[in-house]
Amino acid sequence: MAELTHFDAKGDAHMVDVSDKAVTSRTAVAEGCVIMSPETLALITEGRAKKGDVAGVARLAGIMGAKRTSDLIPLCHPLPVTKVSVDVTPDDSLPGLRVQATVKTTGQTGVEMEALTAVSTACLTVYDMVKAAQKDMVISDIHLLLKEGGKSGRYEAP
Amino acid sequence: MAELTHFDAKGDAHMVDVSDKAVTSRTAVAEGCVIMSPETLALITEGRAKKGDVAGVARLAGIMGAKRTSDLIPLCHPLPVTKVSVDVTPDDSLPGLRVQATVKTTGQTGVEMEALTAVSTACLTVYDMVKAAQKDMVISDIHLLLKEGGKSGRYEAP
Amino acid sequence: MAELTHFDAKGDAHMVDVSDKAVTSRTAVAEGCVIMSPETLALITEGRAKKGDVAGVARLAGIMGAKRTSDLIPLCHPLPVTKVSVDVTPDDSLPGLRVQATVKTTGQTGVEMEALTAVSTACLTVYDMVKAAQKDMVISDIHLLLKEGGKSGRYEAP
Amino acid sequence: MAELTHFDAKGDAHMVDVSDKAVTSRTAVAEGCVIMSPETLALITEGRAKKGDVAGVARLAGIMGAKRTSDLIPLCHPLPVTKVSVDVTPDDSLPGLRVQATVKTTGQTGVEMEALTAVSTACLTVYDMVKAAQKDMVISDIHLLLKEGGKSGRYEAP
Amino acid sequence: MAELTHFDAKGDAHMVDVSDKAVTSRTAVAEGCVIMSPETLALITEGRAKKGDVAGVARLAGIMGAKRTSDLIPLCHPLPVTKVSVDVTPDDSLPGLRVQATVKTTGQTGVEMEALTAVSTACLTVYDMVKAAQKDMVISDIHLLLKEGGKSGRYEAP
Amino acid sequence: MAELTHFDAKGDAHMVDVSDKAVTSRTAVAEGCVIMSPETLALITEGRAKKGDVAGVARLAGIMGAKRTSDLIPLCHPLPVTKVSVDVTPDDSLPGLRVQATVKTTGQTGVEMEALTAVSTACLTVYDMVKAAQKDMVISDIHLLLKEGGKSGRYEAP
Repeated sequence: MAELTHFDAKGDAHMVDVSDKAVTSRTAVAEGCVIMSPETLALITEGRAKKGDVAGVARLAGIMGAKRTSDLIPLCHPLPVTKVSVDVTPDDSLPGLRVQATVKTTGQTGVEMEALTAVSTACLTVYDMVKAAQKDMVISDIHLLLKEGGKSGRYEAP
Repeated sequence: MAELTHFDAKGDAHMVDVSDKAVTSRTAVAEGCVIMSPETLALITEGRAKKGDVAGVARLAGIMGAKRTSDLIPLCHPLPVTKVSVDVTPDDSLPGLRVQATVKTTGQTGVEMEALTAVSTACLTVYDMVKAAQKDMVISDIHLLLKEGGKSGRYEAP
Repeated sequence: MAELTHFDAKGDAHMVDVSDKAVTSRTAVAEGCVIMSPETLALITEGRAKKGDVAGVARLAGIMGAKRTSDLIPLCHPLPVTKVSVDVTPDDSLPGLRVQATVKTTGQTGVEMEALTAVSTACLTVYDMVKAAQKDMVISDIHLLLKEGGKSGRYEAP
Repeated sequence: MAELTHFDAKGDAHMVDVSDKAVTSRTAVAEGCVIMSPETLALITEGRAKKGDVAGVARLAGIMGAKRTSDLIPLCHPLPVTKVSVDVTPDDSLPGLRVQATVKTTGQTGVEMEALTAVSTACLTVYDMVKAAQKDMVISDIHLLLKEGGKSGRYEAP
Repeated sequence: MAELTHFDAKGDAHMVDVSDKAVTSRTAVAEGCVIMSPETLALITEGRAKKGDVAGVARLAGIMGAKRTSDLIPLCHPLPVTKVSVDVTPDDSLPGLRVQATVKTTGQTGVEMEALTAVSTACLTVYDMVKAAQKDMVISDIHLLLKEGGKSGRYEAP
Repeated sequence: MAELTHFDAKGDAHMVDVSDKAVTSRTAVAEGCVIMSPETLALITEGRAKKGDVAGVARLAGIMGAKRTSDLIPLCHPLPVTKVSVDVTPDDSLPGLRVQATVKTTGQTGVEMEALTAVSTACLTVYDMVKAAQKDMVISDIHLLLKEGGKSGRYEAP
């Protein structure tokens, strides 16, 4: 049966011991979105050309956020990421912006938290830049798309 | 018509000048959730009593996350928060955990980003602690519930 | 009867609301020491003149540590300190180094945690720089000497 | 004769070159305590059940503090810790709380500073949460219990 | 005669006490540049349209760097900036990029270090992004252009 | 022809993938200076003996700054540095202080940004400590002196 590995036998939270795990190449991809009105989305996409680059700022915030993951998530292991990329794409079907992050490392633990933190930080940054125009935007559907490398094997979102 | 205040006349991103805004008491409340299977939720809620306190760790991560907001969000003003509280409540109707954060300050800008960052960090922390049991959890529906104080007046989510 | 103010009615940890506290001038002084062998102390005090300045590095680390207090202590309010000074003095009666820190702010909460964190960081830094010579040093007797300003009035260590 | 390795031939502080040291598995255990009145201790231990979890918050702060060690200690090498656990135990003989931290890494330098910083941060956090009830608590007796791995061999506190 | 205010009567570095200084509106403007070959500059300016936005990333890094000033500069007071803007402009006469930063606050100390840190961080970021094309670029001529507000009055670069 | 590697095919900034680069020993040396009046320089060099140690504080700030490089430079990879040393030397021919930093790591990317950030942070710290005496100092000529290790081979400044 599944167990919560972040708690020891007494039930106290701890940082899991990964000392004996193999150093392997690991990748994680996560996704999320910011849902807004079509008018707000238009403000961003038209703005991209002439009024400022919301997606560019959010992308950079996501990359930097990935590097802060172990500072933010209490039981997360620090690890030196070897690649971070973040895509921010307008999607009329939301309507809103879709954010996708890919993170790689060569280390003893996976980077799914780094990918999820990158997505989450990029979404918050979009909200911050656009909130003067619309306050009821929703950050939604943040989830893991892919994880590979490491003992638990490849995971792909259903 | 609405404009993107975080970009100047040339379209370059900048941190908005709030030097002339009044120092007033400001409050923001935000909410979000982590959706999981009933089995995973049971693992957490039963665990709360005897095997570890997922909600307690997430709550603390959210409080600390609120204090890191201006480090994470590029154009966000730093400000000394005067209160942060985070609630993490199991909700069978999701099923999952619902996270709500309240942040206050006495300052020149609002604290909606601090409240949203607290919620987002708490949700990521829940994911981190439970991911060994379930990888397809979804962080969802992060939005502002309330904002008051400051020139733009009171906002309450519809 | 005394209560633990950092926990709410449900028993959950939160950052205490100080929004309604007065902005006043506040000072705190804290002290601590690192106990070592007379030989190790001699290495430092003789070294001060010609081989390097353990006290100088520790003093600076203490000052910078004071500025990181709210990052380190989960429920501590961030506040802009207006003065930090740290003294590091050899004391043959320990034998070892005595560390004293004074911190001031103009704000809504006291700065005792900033003063204690400055002392603690300076002591850790002394340990780090001298540990190659002696591993069984002890950091000890870290306590508050003085606190003034704010509603709870003046406190002086007995 | 012992030398202060953190200073170069001119007496200037520097970060010691560990480039040629072997990457080995390293462990450190450190300990310390917060001494308080029996009444304050009772407030915490009774509180654990129904009014809030001082030990839980302190434990988490200690774990996060270990990850910030190289940010705080000027000449300390950054390294990716692979395990951190912190125990906080009531001890009537002090009376007070005893804090013990265990840190592991696979790297080129030891983790004694990380273990000592974890203990120190957890003790400061206890002080912060309980200071409204007692201001003259003392953080004391922070020392290294065990260090193993690396060229200098195993050290156990006498 | 001029004195080094960051050192006390004993000659020890400390953070100057500004507790009694007035809270006033303060502005600082600083400037600097990155000198490169005409070919490298062409790579950036042509790239701006179609291959990536070196200036945009540098500008954002400068804004975020301003917020980290008191973390980086040991004796610098933390203060909540109320405005940061950074301009990055190609200048064929260098040839290279010219960086200018404007920072405002309402507080007890000036923001010249924040403006200089913004310029410096933006210049380092330009170097980082372009270093694959040219390693012998030079970051140069970082200086204060303007400082106003506070007791020492208005300063304008000669 | 040279390309800007920090931008992908679409022209979006990303953190370059170094997952497949070899882990090798890498060194970088960078240099810069703070130019001031002979009177200000005299204040520092005479001061060194009896009024405080500007060079010592700047050196330490540079060492700590090197460890914050990937926090400051958006697309810079985090990596565990294994050695940092910073020299700060008075130079009458400027007149001013010359700063030189050496950084080493064993990793997948070079440490030129860490060396340049160390120099830059040390120069800013000199400015901060001396600015009460002279406001028109100039931070200048920050450049790479040496880089070795890694696929691109040895680079030495012309």
